[in-house]
Amino acid sequence: MSSVPELQEKLRAFVAARDWAKFHSPKNLAAGLATEAAEILEIFLWLTEAESSQLSADKLACLREEIGDVQLYLVNLADKFALDPLECASAKLEANEAKYPADLVRGSAKKYNEY
Amino acid sequence: MSSVPELQEKLRAFVAARDWAKFHSPKNLAAGLATEAAEILEIFLWLTEAESSQLSADKLACLREEIGDVQLYLVNLADKFALDPLECASAKLEANEAKYPADLVRGSAKKYNEY
Amino acid sequence: MSSVPELQEKLRAFVAARDWAKFHSPKNLAAGLATEAAEILEIFLWLTEAESSQLSADKLACLREEIGDVQLYLVNLADKFALDPLECASAKLEANEAKYPADLVRGSAKKYNEY
Amino acid sequence: MSSVPELQEKLRAFVAARDWAKFHSPKNLAAGLATEAAEILEIFLWLTEAESSQLSADKLACLREEIGDVQLYLVNLADKFALDPLECASAKLEANEAKYPADLVRGSAKKYNEY
Repeated sequence: MSSVPELQEKLRAFVAARDWAKFHSPKNLAAGLATEAAEILEIFLWLTEAESSQLSADKLACLREEIGDVQLYLVNLADKFALDPLECASAKLEANEAKYPADLVRGSAKKYNEY
Repeated sequence: MSSVPELQEKLRAFVAARDWAKFHSPKNLAAGLATEAAEILEIFLWLTEAESSQLSADKLACLREEIGDVQLYLVNLADKFALDPLECASAKLEANEAKYPADLVRGSAKKYNEY
Repeated sequence: MSSVPELQEKLRAFVAARDWAKFHSPKNLAAGLATEAAEILEIFLWLTEAESSQLSADKLACLREEIGDVQLYLVNLADKFALDPLECASAKLEANEAKYPADLVRGSAKKYNEY
Repeated sequence: MSSVPELQEKLRAFVAARDWAKFHSPKNLAAGLATEAAEILEIFLWLTEAESSQLSADKLACLREEIGDVQLYLVNLADKFALDPLECASAKLEANEAKYPADLVRGSAKKYNEY
């Protein structure tokens, strides 16, 4: 099983061996993250919601790669601020539990501030 | 330390308690991921590359939340296809090691297909 | 009726009066464009495709503003390279007419390179 | 010179000849717009702000195409709601003139709500 610290370590070594840290300002990593997220969006572009659950083998292989790219950018960006993205996600999920009480929002996609 | 399986489990419970799975087609999760990635981009929008490494406390708190949001969408989307995003990242990093040989690309940001 | 040259002229005056040209590198304008496009995406996020044609008055007002923002960034970015985005669109549409012959692609969303 | 109504008319004919309107829900067009905006972002990804003003001939040709794609999606999406994107931009620019008084914001990139 992969862990964030392991991935960080491998990624730092990958970047150092290529002298690429100079390109990896947080501003640039944020742009890279957004472009990779858009490539995931593109995979699903002309599919219906139902079709989007039934990807062809080719699209699934593509999705696996793009999810990998997004995760790499996210770990790289977070590392610049000594953050662990899984910890950030865990904290955000707890905040969401308070913000969207299950009894209040059940079955509705309204945003919390529309209640 | 958080792990992907732990986060998946908490996220599934969060979604089930709110009956939100019906909104979470892969197509919709991909769109949510892209909108959250763009919110990270917005944090850095008018900063120079140098400034982007020196975030104010407010912006850093915001970044932590947005990284959490991106990670949550990524885990949720990956879970629809029984994927672990850290495993995807680890596999992609190994592919990148072959695609961008350190000796060839050192110090250059050219994409591999421009060599 | 608005024209691109008119909008360019008003936008240049707006930017000059605020001394904002120094922030408007093409790189920054491209990031601004992507964040505004994502705000449009967010309007439709939890709607079905059918619902997305029937916006509430609030969402429609929001869409009108976000379309305006995207158009402003696009005109601003294009202006840095002496381009008219409507001319670019017209040229691209003609290229698409050749790339996607109507007889071949009718009713299919496959991308041209999948034929 | 191209105008929005002219482009709308040509685009409607292009779509009708290919029977593609069924794919063009506003939700899908918003996703297409976001993916094309991200392709513009990608052109500038590893360039500095200064370099981003000095595109190579190849990148400039690419930018012209991507600006065309963004404009086409924007006109298509706006057309679904009987909107003209240039009119939306003109109205938004006027709103921005009130929101960001030149005397107050000159030379600063702070957002209006930080004043």
